[in-house]
Amino acid sequence: MIAAKHSVTVNDRAYRWMDRPLIVICVDGSEPDYITQAIRAGAAPYLQEMCGKGTSLLADAVVPSFTNPNNLSIVTGVPPAVHGICGNYFYDRETGTEVMMTDPAYLRAGTILAGFSHAGAKVVVITAKDKLCRLLGHQLENGICFSAEKADQTTMAVNGVDDALALSGMVLPAVYSSQLSEFVFAAGLKLMATQRPDIMYLSTTDYVQHKDAPGTPGANAFYSMLDAYLRQLDALGATIALTADHGMNAKTDAKGDPNIIFLQDALDEWIGKNAARVILPITDPYVAHHGALGSFATAYLPAGVQAGNIVTRLAALPGVEAAYERAAGCRRFELPEDRMGDVIIVAERHSVLGTTRDRHDLSGLEVPLRSHGGTAEKTVPMLFNRRAVGIDFSRRLRNFDIFDIALNRLQ
Amino acid sequence: MIAAKHSVTVNDRAYRWMDRPLIVICVDGSEPDYITQAIRAGAAPYLQEMCGKGTSLLADAVVPSFTNPNNLSIVTGVPPAVHGICGNYFYDRETGTEVMMTDPAYLRAGTILAGFSHAGAKVVVITAKDKLCRLLGHQLENGICFSAEKADQTTMAVNGVDDALALSGMVLPAVYSSQLSEFVFAAGLKLMATQRPDIMYLSTTDYVQHKDAPGTPGANAFYSMLDAYLRQLDALGATIALTADHGMNAKTDAKGDPNIIFLQDALDEWIGKNAARVILPITDPYVAHHGALGSFATAYLPAGVQAGNIVTRLAALPGVEAAYERAAGCRRFELPEDRMGDVIIVAERHSVLGTTRDRHDLSGLEVPLRSHGGTAEKTVPMLFNRRAVGIDFSRRLRNFDIFDIALNRLQ
Repeated sequence: MIAAKHSVTVNDRAYRWMDRPLIVICVDGSEPDYITQAIRAGAAPYLQEMCGKGTSLLADAVVPSFTNPNNLSIVTGVPPAVHGICGNYFYDRETGTEVMMTDPAYLRAGTILAGFSHAGAKVVVITAKDKLCRLLGHQLENGICFSAEKADQTTMAVNGVDDALALSGMVLPAVYSSQLSEFVFAAGLKLMATQRPDIMYLSTTDYVQHKDAPGTPGANAFYSMLDAYLRQLDALGATIALTADHGMNAKTDAKGDPNIIFLQDALDEWIGKNAARVILPITDPYVAHHGALGSFATAYLPAGVQAGNIVTRLAALPGVEAAYERAAGCRRFELPEDRMGDVIIVAERHSVLGTTRDRHDLSGLEVPLRSHGGTAEKTVPMLFNRRAVGIDFSRRLRNFDIFDIALNRLQ
Repeated sequence: MIAAKHSVTVNDRAYRWMDRPLIVICVDGSEPDYITQAIRAGAAPYLQEMCGKGTSLLADAVVPSFTNPNNLSIVTGVPPAVHGICGNYFYDRETGTEVMMTDPAYLRAGTILAGFSHAGAKVVVITAKDKLCRLLGHQLENGICFSAEKADQTTMAVNGVDDALALSGMVLPAVYSSQLSEFVFAAGLKLMATQRPDIMYLSTTDYVQHKDAPGTPGANAFYSMLDAYLRQLDALGATIALTADHGMNAKTDAKGDPNIIFLQDALDEWIGKNAARVILPITDPYVAHHGALGSFATAYLPAGVQAGNIVTRLAALPGVEAAYERAAGCRRFELPEDRMGDVIIVAERHSVLGTTRDRHDLSGLEVPLRSHGGTAEKTVPMLFNRRAVGIDFSRRLRNFDIFDIALNRLQ
């Protein structure tokens, strides 16, 4: 096993063995300005130090700029065209059902986490929501993998740790809370201090980012919390690499009312009631904070309808940034064609895409809608607490280059 | 003159005579979220009421999303392809000089303000900076037109008012200050209360928006100030119509360092030192708050260089959203071809365009750069303190529809 410790190759990318523990953090919905504004407000002194002594970059996330496609890209180092997870669910045309993609059976590429664990590294994965856990923990050997959401239900056999709840010293947080993310850091810090794993992957939830704009009190409080944990993790001698799955934007007019393009209503009018089927891949069991409204959608058309004509009409709708036929859209965004509809639609920065007016429950929106999914949310921060060298700035950096930079490019 | 008072036609659009005083306000750099967040923070109770009793819309600004092209579109009701003002300056190829477009000689369309003044309306125009004054006041008959910046130098002969400074009860504000905008409202309120003009056009400066993100203390303080003046103007029985010339975005990484694409450096490398000439139409005499860095640029190429090849290379630069040859870019953004270069470049939301690394003085940037100019800053609020009816939502609203809605569509 000595040879294996020089480097591990996963999906054709070689990663050097870590010289100290590596913590990769995906801060859900962390538009870069959240950190900039928190630093400016004095709420994130460690992040300011980290940017100064280390490396601050921007990178492109995967579009659709949603949580699962990006977390899976980060841990595999490849786009959804390769790993297959292009949303929270897809429509299975043969069975006529909408299928959740939380089962690792849908994952088409191995993860860097599993690759290192097979080579003998001790790997810890902690997520806020449980939906990501099974995908991120896939094929982990002797690792620990659990979610804050179900921290009270962990077992050594399934999660590699008994009673994860006790690790954090916190009570089990609510799914819709800032504490769900805080739990991830509290448990991670405890595990780093006690077990010193080789790789730790921490993934938060964007409950706060969906509510609070960069620099506002709720947002600064979140980054202040994050900042204190990062300082302690740094003090333990770990490499810290931080990025995000996507950014976040206000999706409202000045009054605070959401700008929604109801795609199913439009398609119903053009080609008949329910002739097409609109899929909103942001949808998952937890939609209260965004009403299942994001800026990316795909639609399946009935036989005989020309996708090109529909694309032209969709692209002309106010608030639509671009529409594509399947092949063109999948090429543009590196998505798997067999899991996308006949047309792909991206909304502009201030707009979101819905199905029909009566199908979206907006009663959970207590504050003006902020959301993501489009190209307007593709730019994310990428920070390291050590200096990076030899990065090729002539190409676009991706958030899924983070393991490459963290393991191969830090001084 | 009775017949004229039914409607006034300017640039092929007919505007009904106002039934009460009309105040059109262009809040420079007012990304919609500034208002949303100010309302949420309780800093803008009148704007909240205004949205409730009146109308809240979003509209597309002109790209380049800069101050002069948009203010001129708003007061003419047409895009720059018609009125000619496509930036703060353009490059005159024949003379080899860069020409400021603050002289009305460059304006190719009449203004709605001048049209109504010729029909007998009393018109008042107040701007923050002086650079807009001559253009906005062009061909005004018996009107008042002055800037806060030079309020101490007004004369009845030139500006239609002696000693405009006394109107506001304020001392002359600094050019780089929030007070420069406050002066516009203070003077406007005094004129509305004392002279009750038929049309008042108020245009602020984006000094605050370049510094402070939506919902942060400095921004909320600005909108709180604005809010108090709007309430008083409403109480005087005026129709209030509010929009913006452009939005505003953070143009930095998480650390707060600006993301700059140095176009002249790139072109120098590709086709030789100073063979091309990059024009940044944001540049004007006041650049300390943005370092002349915006998200829109045009470049003139030497004879013999294929624009198509350069466009392909420019479009591939990380941070560039799109690049166009002149004709395509002018068609896309409705710009006058004779005042644009051979290629047109738009930067992404988090990036700005510069000339050469050594030509931008960033010492005036005391806070992380926020700027505008691209399509990411094209969405702006459009608010009315009365209900609008009969608006065609199947087409994109433009900020330069504001006089049409204010005069033709309000109940």
